[in-house]
Amino acid sequence: MKRLEAIGTEALRTLEARLSDEHAALSRKGLHLDLTRGKPGTDQLELSNVLDGILQGDYRAEDGTDVRNYGNLLGIPEARRLGGLIMDIEPELVLAGGNSSLLLMYLYVETAHLFGAAGPDSSWRDEAESADERAQARVKFLCPVPGYDRHFTICESLGIEMIAVPMLETGPDMDKVEACVRSDPLVKGIWCVPKYSNPTGITYSAEVVARFAQLGNMAGPHFRIMWDNAYAVHDLASPGDELANIVPLVRKAGTEDSLVIFASTSKITYAGGGVAYLATSAANLQVFERRLSAMIVSFDKVNQLRHARLLPDMDALHRQMRRQSELVHPRFEHVLSALERELGGSGLAEWTRPHGGYFISVDVIPGLARETVALAGKSGLELTPAGSTYPLGHDPQDQNIRIAPTFATPDEIDRAMDVFVLCVKLAAVRQRLAKGQDAR
Amino acid sequence: MKRLEAIGTEALRTLEARLSDEHAALSRKGLHLDLTRGKPGTDQLELSNVLDGILQGDYRAEDGTDVRNYGNLLGIPEARRLGGLIMDIEPELVLAGGNSSLLLMYLYVETAHLFGAAGPDSSWRDEAESADERAQARVKFLCPVPGYDRHFTICESLGIEMIAVPMLETGPDMDKVEACVRSDPLVKGIWCVPKYSNPTGITYSAEVVARFAQLGNMAGPHFRIMWDNAYAVHDLASPGDELANIVPLVRKAGTEDSLVIFASTSKITYAGGGVAYLATSAANLQVFERRLSAMIVSFDKVNQLRHARLLPDMDALHRQMRRQSELVHPRFEHVLSALERELGGSGLAEWTRPHGGYFISVDVIPGLARETVALAGKSGLELTPAGSTYPLGHDPQDQNIRIAPTFATPDEIDRAMDVFVLCVKLAAVRQRLAKGQDAR
Repeated sequence: MKRLEAIGTEALRTLEARLSDEHAALSRKGLHLDLTRGKPGTDQLELSNVLDGILQGDYRAEDGTDVRNYGNLLGIPEARRLGGLIMDIEPELVLAGGNSSLLLMYLYVETAHLFGAAGPDSSWRDEAESADERAQARVKFLCPVPGYDRHFTICESLGIEMIAVPMLETGPDMDKVEACVRSDPLVKGIWCVPKYSNPTGITYSAEVVARFAQLGNMAGPHFRIMWDNAYAVHDLASPGDELANIVPLVRKAGTEDSLVIFASTSKITYAGGGVAYLATSAANLQVFERRLSAMIVSFDKVNQLRHARLLPDMDALHRQMRRQSELVHPRFEHVLSALERELGGSGLAEWTRPHGGYFISVDVIPGLARETVALAGKSGLELTPAGSTYPLGHDPQDQNIRIAPTFATPDEIDRAMDVFVLCVKLAAVRQRLAKGQDAR
Repeated sequence: MKRLEAIGTEALRTLEARLSDEHAALSRKGLHLDLTRGKPGTDQLELSNVLDGILQGDYRAEDGTDVRNYGNLLGIPEARRLGGLIMDIEPELVLAGGNSSLLLMYLYVETAHLFGAAGPDSSWRDEAESADERAQARVKFLCPVPGYDRHFTICESLGIEMIAVPMLETGPDMDKVEACVRSDPLVKGIWCVPKYSNPTGITYSAEVVARFAQLGNMAGPHFRIMWDNAYAVHDLASPGDELANIVPLVRKAGTEDSLVIFASTSKITYAGGGVAYLATSAANLQVFERRLSAMIVSFDKVNQLRHARLLPDMDALHRQMRRQSELVHPRFEHVLSALERELGGSGLAEWTRPHGGYFISVDVIPGLARETVALAGKSGLELTPAGSTYPLGHDPQDQNIRIAPTFATPDEIDRAMDVFVLCVKLAAVRQRLAKGQDAR
């Protein structure tokens, strides 16, 4: 499509009328298309069907634990080892949990905020309260934007203030991150999806990772990096992006306690029935385990054993992820080729071309994300609400839209992208016409 | 055994010497016996082995949900219905969770305490703080004793003060409960195991249940009954105790919001891999679901579907529980017959004869519970630490010992009970001799 600046007002009016007609026609079709959530497609879920029945009557973990009974709060050895493979860390530092890494993240932040990540007398809230009782100093988290809405919701639900930090091509803007951390000891953490970031799909550069490892030396007490490595092995093609391993770096820097790694098999096996992981320093893990022991006897070790049997080693894990990428990669291509074909060179949108993960991030013209998403909704295409990639749902530029291509079939994606590009164009043409009228 | 009062000092000394010798001989044997935790025996776990593989490639819940994917925070309909059967309440008011009802209890109490069980501005802690800022008024829970240590740990971990209330044959001492609730609006809750109570095994009488339904009308705002119906269908023989259904009673009394029911399949199928339940008023459920949505996308619905397929109706549930009782009942009988044979009429101990549940509660002579448990430990029998059935582990009379007969085999139980009764006798004889010397 031509750039709008190159189209005269009359032609623009004609274009608007045509696009409006197309949009109205689509709306009458009663489509039900959905590119909202990073849900695996049914074909992806089918890859793990062998899980049900895989135990074949053998319920003993390798250390002799009967997985059907109570016990082993940190998980069974082989499940912790699988977590260690995914997160590239020693199994002894890994907690294998239930089906939700989000729950582990919530409980970790809550523990640190209200009860103390380093035990009693280390809680962030108490520090904030004693810092300035009258001014009600608040605990703060850094939130690279655009980012993952559920991370932000955890902070919101705990009353933690969020400071947006821009994402660059190489990761968060580390100059800003370091400045924030240095200037305010109540900046207690930062959310990260270091590989195939949600939603931009970029992977943090080695330099950025190295600078993260130093943050614990600049920050106030009990600062924590929430290193949500959700897409650690989720390459679209081989070889994928390489993420530098932060673990040896924090050890060298003496900042091990600042790092808390999360991962899960949600997008390796079942989104709703996988195994979640947390890994951190031995000291942190001990405090967190003690706190967890007040809440739960043990997580579901039967499901942990199923996963360990399905994915006993790195080869099995890679085989599984290659089969996943064979299903996911074409879907990404369908989205990207529609964007390129319809919007390439138009100036109406920019987008990322990730090498893995679950999302494509589209920036439309500032001020048009909400309008574009609303237009799409009217014609039967559900998109993630505009703004949701920002803390409190507020995208100051109103321009970011997250596209999740996995759940739809390639054919549905084609139809959905027809709607999407039409709505991007229509919103932009209308804005241009309105501006022209303003100028008169 | 004779009553000690009937034995002369010399004979008592001889007896002490003989029992000490027996104890020393046992200690040299290097036994490893364990009657501590309410863990199902391996034979009980085997009853549910069909769970692994039961789905046979059909992952659709009855409402069409693909259980392998994200979604349905309250659980799939058939799993909620199973919870409704167990708890005798409408499925619409049931949350089907993960594998741990303890986690649901923790999260519920935490939500009510810190965030508000009735939404913002209803938190217990805020009420306590605004009640008296200087005196630091504390939120309190009533704890019928002896009771379940993990309930008490939840309060302890959240800084909630615990007030012990005696358990009678019919349930908690309701005169005391009502007096506490009326006199202090910061008494915000009470822990209950209404059927086959942990550890006494008694079932609350219909009158006690009716009085519970009225508590919400006497208490301060947002009072909650934590109705942990863990042994709802866990009869040792048929018919078991009948627990009056509290649900219609709270509706009649207009106190629905005061009731939060918990249950799980931990002792129906797998202790470590079952499905946990919470049921409460529609208003409460909505608030709790909203809070949960900040922590987790959905619980493991694959496992929920497995359970719903295994236990589709009341008949299947009863069949499963009959098979459980066939394994558990004899173990209870082994414990009880040893107690009766060795300690009956001796005045050295009293114990309960439950019709269901997982525990037998033994009261030894005041001041001897710790000593008895310590003696047992020395001779290779692990018992639940004395005091653990009381808040903060403090049994003021030092007399209650909880016996959990399920995990051991009947043969192990016999050997364990030989040790146990020996230790009860030895501790009592030594106490009697020491008193005699004091008296001189």
